[in-house]
Amino acid sequence: MTFSAVDVIRAKRDGGELSDEQIDWVLDAFTRGAVDPEQMSALAMAVFFRGLSPRELARWTAAMIASGARLDLSSVPRPTVDKHSTGGVGDKITLPLVPLVAACGAAVPQLSGRGLGHTGGTLDKLESIPGWRAALTNDEFLAQLSSVGGVICAAGDELAPADKKLYALRDVTGTVESIPLIASSIMSKKIAEGSSALVLDVKVGTGAFMKTVEDARLLATTMVELGTAHGVATSALLTDMSTPLGLTAGNALEVAESLEVLAGGGPADVVELTLALAQQMLVAVGISEDPEDALRDGRAMDAWRAMIAAQGGDPSAPLPVARERHLVTAPASGTLTRLDAYAVGVAAWRCGAGRARKEDAVSAGAGVVLFAKPGDDVVAGAPLLELHADDPARFESALAALDGAWDIGAADGFTPTPLVLDRIG
Amino acid sequence: MTFSAVDVIRAKRDGGELSDEQIDWVLDAFTRGAVDPEQMSALAMAVFFRGLSPRELARWTAAMIASGARLDLSSVPRPTVDKHSTGGVGDKITLPLVPLVAACGAAVPQLSGRGLGHTGGTLDKLESIPGWRAALTNDEFLAQLSSVGGVICAAGDELAPADKKLYALRDVTGTVESIPLIASSIMSKKIAEGSSALVLDVKVGTGAFMKTVEDARLLATTMVELGTAHGVATSALLTDMSTPLGLTAGNALEVAESLEVLAGGGPADVVELTLALAQQMLVAVGISEDPEDALRDGRAMDAWRAMIAAQGGDPSAPLPVARERHLVTAPASGTLTRLDAYAVGVAAWRCGAGRARKEDAVSAGAGVVLFAKPGDDVVAGAPLLELHADDPARFESALAALDGAWDIGAADGFTPTPLVLDRIG
Repeated sequence: MTFSAVDVIRAKRDGGELSDEQIDWVLDAFTRGAVDPEQMSALAMAVFFRGLSPRELARWTAAMIASGARLDLSSVPRPTVDKHSTGGVGDKITLPLVPLVAACGAAVPQLSGRGLGHTGGTLDKLESIPGWRAALTNDEFLAQLSSVGGVICAAGDELAPADKKLYALRDVTGTVESIPLIASSIMSKKIAEGSSALVLDVKVGTGAFMKTVEDARLLATTMVELGTAHGVATSALLTDMSTPLGLTAGNALEVAESLEVLAGGGPADVVELTLALAQQMLVAVGISEDPEDALRDGRAMDAWRAMIAAQGGDPSAPLPVARERHLVTAPASGTLTRLDAYAVGVAAWRCGAGRARKEDAVSAGAGVVLFAKPGDDVVAGAPLLELHADDPARFESALAALDGAWDIGAADGFTPTPLVLDRIG
Repeated sequence: MTFSAVDVIRAKRDGGELSDEQIDWVLDAFTRGAVDPEQMSALAMAVFFRGLSPRELARWTAAMIASGARLDLSSVPRPTVDKHSTGGVGDKITLPLVPLVAACGAAVPQLSGRGLGHTGGTLDKLESIPGWRAALTNDEFLAQLSSVGGVICAAGDELAPADKKLYALRDVTGTVESIPLIASSIMSKKIAEGSSALVLDVKVGTGAFMKTVEDARLLATTMVELGTAHGVATSALLTDMSTPLGLTAGNALEVAESLEVLAGGGPADVVELTLALAQQMLVAVGISEDPEDALRDGRAMDAWRAMIAAQGGDPSAPLPVARERHLVTAPASGTLTRLDAYAVGVAAWRCGAGRARKEDAVSAGAGVVLFAKPGDDVVAGAPLLELHADDPARFESALAALDGAWDIGAADGFTPTPLVLDRIG
């Protein structure tokens, strides 16, 4: 069936519900190039203002999945489960989590992306490991998933191509921040990936897309419903992203911190969230093992080394470091009551850890190292954080991003927030 | 100054006000091709939902004028005044009005367009006159304006090119129906046209863009303020468009009806509106003559013949007629209490009077002829209206458009509406 793109846009603009046929048509026609980008961006902006009903959203997501292939993981002799995070500053959880869950007997097919904006991308982080490559053939992917149990690799073009084209368009047309468009984008890719269960880590706070718990809960509920409707056992954690996760933001810096966690150490918040997500994932596929055991006895680290080596990486090679460092000291003594995630993310990005355009390269060593987290006591003149960059000219704009990024005050000015705010599904 | 298009879109999307510099930049960059169509359509949709403040709208309009040249009419030895109608079914008023006002001593530089959708275009109507051509050089335009006093011709590419490009984009992206975008589009062209005064005919009703008096008044007030701010003496009439103007909708059919008016006859509503607009235009440039005299004594018809001849047309040549006719009779006796303008407009369009795409040709003879107007008594089986088309295959869809388009009932079921609903400015 053929429709007029203008009629579809106007119907949504004026608050109407699109029919299943209209949704199927517009997404297919856009993917084929029969609906122009300027029409699709106008429709996306209308969706931003008018939303999508549950029926529209379900159909929209199904149409994006149907624009490509859904992977068949039936040959993998382990239960399959994946995790997705909506993105945060210092969020390296995928790195220790995938080998940890694999070590407990599940298979984790993590098809991942590169970073854009102030949050880093998992592939960018792993590419700081000498030799490691993100691209796998379908056979390599399935073989590694069966043997090692964990794969983190680049998503192929055959997975939800409608989403790929729409996401690139939304990125340049100011139509990213729409809950139905975010939910359908994430879930179309994750459902097409073919795993039987999925745990979502929906971030809330200054460093996240969702600034309020209400918005995050709505996004999480929406995604859990979409996954469940497509036969994927889906649940979500809402987790705090008002301050960075761990003590590092940057590519090799975050790999190093992840290795500490896999070695049984690491920052308490990174360990806590890794274990919380691992437990949720294992429960989803009926594995009763306590993931803490696999961290303690070294099986998680073994799985990491196998996973990196299987993709050409040398897990023993030294990680790259940035050539230049700039230390920032505490301007006063007291308790660090606030350290803004978004500001730290932008600073790491400006140091070279992230890219402004898709075609930019990232610096492996660049980023930010924190010496204190909210709740910690600091002393005037002692190190607060350190910027790492290959080019010292980057420090000025990175420091500008940190202007007003923290508060130092009385101990009672700090109220600890739980890291895991809620569970859904 | 350079901005990021995404920042501009997001600012408007989130309800912010754009700065003068942002508006100047985005319209210039769009005209140059540095802002992509998919970004501009997203911005237009955001403007649809968020509107423009008076300051934003003034700047937006000024930037569209500044994208091209403003015509210099200072060599014309008559006061210059123009008229613009927001478009309605059977609205042929421009045809008798321009020669009438010229006959009274003013110069009317009417740069006009072709029709798209259910309302006809003035140039399409005039092109049904054998030999008449819409394109004039700048010198021909000025010479005819000085000698004859009236010119109806195609607007050149140098007039508000930003609007030309934006209008074409809005047309395919469902972003036409926005009061600030409509107002800035009309007024940028009319101000750039260089006349010293302007009278707007803002239509209200089922056959018009503005369905309510409130919306029409807001559009009229907005345009009057924009014109006044640019030194053009601007006023507006709000006029009824719930039923077609006159008894014809179609190209040659409307020319023929206009000739009746210029000959001193014609339907009462067409005569009334022509005189009301002519009076408003003459007052605006300080000419005290009563236009009714110029109709009665034949000077308006003389000006029409001179105007058509100056553009290569033969004012004495017979007008084209459609090859096929289909008569619709009244299904009952009584008073015609309603005859819907939009339905008649669509029927005329489907008969071939209008075009679905810019590149389509129109039929000169096609259209609808009415035998009764609301308030008239009709007799069952007597003619109600007649469809004219070159191809009889068009009648079926034209008749479908007329389904439910009229009511016939008791005489007290009809309440006459004044044609001129309000005056502004």
